[in-house]
Amino acid sequence: MAKQIPDIVIGRLPVYLRALVQMGQEGRQVTSSQELGERLGISAAQIRKDLSQFGEFGKQGTGYNIEFLSKQLSEILKVNRVWDVAIVGAGDIGRALAGYSGFSERGFRIAMIFDNKPELVGSEAAGFMIKDGRQLRDEIAAAGIKIAMIAVPATQAQDVVNQLVEAGVRAILSYAPVHLSVPAGVRVQNIDPSIHLQRMTYYLE
Amino acid sequence: MAKQIPDIVIGRLPVYLRALVQMGQEGRQVTSSQELGERLGISAAQIRKDLSQFGEFGKQGTGYNIEFLSKQLSEILKVNRVWDVAIVGAGDIGRALAGYSGFSERGFRIAMIFDNKPELVGSEAAGFMIKDGRQLRDEIAAAGIKIAMIAVPATQAQDVVNQLVEAGVRAILSYAPVHLSVPAGVRVQNIDPSIHLQRMTYYLE
Repeated sequence: MAKQIPDIVIGRLPVYLRALVQMGQEGRQVTSSQELGERLGISAAQIRKDLSQFGEFGKQGTGYNIEFLSKQLSEILKVNRVWDVAIVGAGDIGRALAGYSGFSERGFRIAMIFDNKPELVGSEAAGFMIKDGRQLRDEIAAAGIKIAMIAVPATQAQDVVNQLVEAGVRAILSYAPVHLSVPAGVRVQNIDPSIHLQRMTYYLE
Repeated sequence: MAKQIPDIVIGRLPVYLRALVQMGQEGRQVTSSQELGERLGISAAQIRKDLSQFGEFGKQGTGYNIEFLSKQLSEILKVNRVWDVAIVGAGDIGRALAGYSGFSERGFRIAMIFDNKPELVGSEAAGFMIKDGRQLRDEIAAAGIKIAMIAVPATQAQDVVNQLVEAGVRAILSYAPVHLSVPAGVRVQNIDPSIHLQRMTYYLE
């Protein structure tokens, strides 16, 4: 059995991966924990410690090969494949997500979008035909989709999450500003801009 | 001089505040670190420890008064007032942010939105007239705005951030999927849905 790696470490790997891919796009071939650390505002020791949990990726004194380490991190994070993602909620945020071109290079493909408003069902958003929210469970289960992003009002979010879990979804990214309960084995991440803003106002004069 | 409180603690306070406000809206008057912890998936001991850094908010055995603790946290986070916020980028995400009604109750007011595309400048987004990105520095400095959200392409993000910093902005929430450099005294938070999704795919089968 593999050892348990703290989720806080897992949470930093996508940040490392993003920086490495960016360096690669800049034409770079080799980097170091020092340089990565300076870019990201994380100590070099922390980066070395995090990466060492997964193996030996660099040689003492020669640094990390950017392409190799990117591939390894993609594999660890299981984004060396493409995951289908369902969006629930076709309001402003749902549409922005459906039209966002940045997912495809990072392991994700928007597969379908749902809304429960009769006036939206059947109309188009970012090239998708909006599906009826009442079909959510059946359609997602039939497609075998494991990942969803929800952008519905806070009052509807828990109900949508329950349906997603029943449909077999195991990873949910929520834009609803409310804490969501899920059974063991299902992960939720929240994006709530006010939370981020409030974390910074503390430091303002 | 006040003692330095770890940023990771500060980062949890908005999450506590959101849960407390939600409990208040449910008509509740008192809660406990146990109950808060269960709602949020954080240990009761952690919550007590975090709050104790700021004072004595509850009585042993009687729990926390929800309204009182909410007010205290709002004050600590400096969101017992309303901060003007500028948005840079009037694409899908910028427009969604401009139209998002959830900011006002949480200490923020969208004051202006900028874009540098000539065809967008002067047109309307969520009730705002889109301002010319070339005026960004002057307008933000003149208005004394300290907080900005940016939703511009990754390639433009650092340049926009540099201009915001010159204009006096001290807290930036970025939706551009790229690491941004800022001088000491300026805070940046990133929202990148792919980062959140990749943190969850690690756990999928």
